[in-house]
Amino acid sequence: MFENKQPLTSLSELGEFGLINHLNDKITLINKSTIKGIGDDAAVLEYSANRQILVSSDLLVEGIHFDLSYTPLKHLGYKAAIVNFSDIYAMNGKPEHITVNIAMSNRFSLEAVDELYEGILLACKNYEVDLVGGDTSSSKSGLFISITVIGQAGADKITYRNGAKSNDLICVSGDLGGAYMGLQLLEREKQVFLANPEMQPEIDNYDYILERQLKPEAREDIIKLLEKENIKPTSMIDISDGLASELIHICTSSNVGCTIYDDKIPMDHTTIAFANEINMDPVTATLNGGEDYELLFTIDIKDYNKIKEIKEISVIGHITDKSEGCNIICGDNKELVLLKAQGWNAF
Amino acid sequence: MFENKQPLTSLSELGEFGLINHLNDKITLINKSTIKGIGDDAAVLEYSANRQILVSSDLLVEGIHFDLSYTPLKHLGYKAAIVNFSDIYAMNGKPEHITVNIAMSNRFSLEAVDELYEGILLACKNYEVDLVGGDTSSSKSGLFISITVIGQAGADKITYRNGAKSNDLICVSGDLGGAYMGLQLLEREKQVFLANPEMQPEIDNYDYILERQLKPEAREDIIKLLEKENIKPTSMIDISDGLASELIHICTSSNVGCTIYDDKIPMDHTTIAFANEINMDPVTATLNGGEDYELLFTIDIKDYNKIKEIKEISVIGHITDKSEGCNIICGDNKELVLLKAQGWNAF
Repeated sequence: MFENKQPLTSLSELGEFGLINHLNDKITLINKSTIKGIGDDAAVLEYSANRQILVSSDLLVEGIHFDLSYTPLKHLGYKAAIVNFSDIYAMNGKPEHITVNIAMSNRFSLEAVDELYEGILLACKNYEVDLVGGDTSSSKSGLFISITVIGQAGADKITYRNGAKSNDLICVSGDLGGAYMGLQLLEREKQVFLANPEMQPEIDNYDYILERQLKPEAREDIIKLLEKENIKPTSMIDISDGLASELIHICTSSNVGCTIYDDKIPMDHTTIAFANEINMDPVTATLNGGEDYELLFTIDIKDYNKIKEIKEISVIGHITDKSEGCNIICGDNKELVLLKAQGWNAF
Repeated sequence: MFENKQPLTSLSELGEFGLINHLNDKITLINKSTIKGIGDDAAVLEYSANRQILVSSDLLVEGIHFDLSYTPLKHLGYKAAIVNFSDIYAMNGKPEHITVNIAMSNRFSLEAVDELYEGILLACKNYEVDLVGGDTSSSKSGLFISITVIGQAGADKITYRNGAKSNDLICVSGDLGGAYMGLQLLEREKQVFLANPEMQPEIDNYDYILERQLKPEAREDIIKLLEKENIKPTSMIDISDGLASELIHICTSSNVGCTIYDDKIPMDHTTIAFANEINMDPVTATLNGGEDYELLFTIDIKDYNKIKEIKEISVIGHITDKSEGCNIICGDNKELVLLKAQGWNAF
């Protein structure tokens, strides 16, 4: 896991256009809306009438968002794409195109760039997204990945953050806190390795949280499921910064309050086990950890019957009047605690 | 010009959401196609039927693409936006939206970020483009600006690189080489300053080339002019890497050759004067310098009468059969020289 790769082909030798051609050869276009991908001043896309277009951008910076000592480049590429797709699903739309801008120092070889793009292109293939453009450059130090995703949705389907209303149910997909616990595990093992490189990592039984951190997925399946059940959420957001921060985003945008219950927050047993091992409250990991890329959404109470049997969706509370604030009911004695956005800060 | 600004408000204090809100307050949306800008997982855009959408991304990296010791942040922001708009004009389209991803080290203050965005937003205002999203992050070192631009054009209007055919005329807008000469001037003055900070910069009479380097414009006016004259170029590209490199792009994509004449390449007298001062051939600056953001395009010979009186457009040569290669006719003895793409390399 901590092996160092030897640089093989230098990027300065290949040059920028050489690299672009090299990368372009790996791309297969999927979407009918892609008229022209890489190879001109701009990509050309065509969407049918009365469709709205969704655009989102995310930036991943070495040393801030990822640590290459335990993040394989292919996984990093996959995750960089996924976090962008997730933003489009969080609008109830379908991602269709991305542009990828990458700056990297000269310690990276062509083979390293290939690994990174392999991950990006695998994500594109799995989610049927076309890579249609981008820019590459060197940097004085570190790796920077900036991705813009473009997607579409029918105008009446788009789900904003601002539609939640009193008595709506608050739902989350999948389980939370795993990605953060995976990060804690990787950080712990890195410290152990730095102290003694002969030591074997203790990561048995923790595959699930490692995968949550290193190879997250975007919840396209939930969007399809909601469509199949004919549910349009009243508001939706993806969980990139932790449940507390995202809930506060929805409540602020919608001008409402909320009450959630700590014992309703879905967690995997691996998440709980590792949290116990490091003496951390797993609920804290779900509230403030982030990077789960699950969907947080609100639905009208009349839709409850449609979702109550769906294993992948948990109801964790309800929307209240704004005056009641954002609260979580905690523990056996049902203590009311004010939610605070301690989510991850890039600064 | 070389003054140091004192950091005033720390970004870590403000936090990511604080910064986003702070920046969002400065944005006024212009385009009817902007349904929703910053403030949700994705921006929402709506284009009318049978319009095609153009997307392009560019990356500017400190120490590679710009040097903050002589680049004011407001100018940098303006230029970062302009280079993206230019890509959309080079497709014969109209830029309408951008997303801006910025990573910066903690040596930057909020006031510095404001200056940068002031430049970006001034460019947006001048070209009627909406800033609809983006991401901000810290970096371990240096400033990274990644912008994605989205524009539109009627499907029949879009001008690709691959449409040039034998006997088409090769045209350029404005004049070339100025941005590169401006860069040489700034680099010279930086060295002088580093050797002796008391020395006053010798930049009198060179305003034009400084402006070409520090505050370029995108040629929206040429696109409008071509439309007014009812000319659709057979191919088009913007000159970001130097005339030679861009011409070779057009010829390779179009599967043709070309012949241009060194004495037809438009140059400003300031460009020539500074080139003479530093003993450089100004034609070399036009061929390999780059960053002029002028438009290079080919037109059918039947359209010659429509453009021959337009001061801002120069005919510099013509398209030939592929077998003849890409050539420039040089000097008084009309020597034939093979064009080589020595344009700027980011690696």
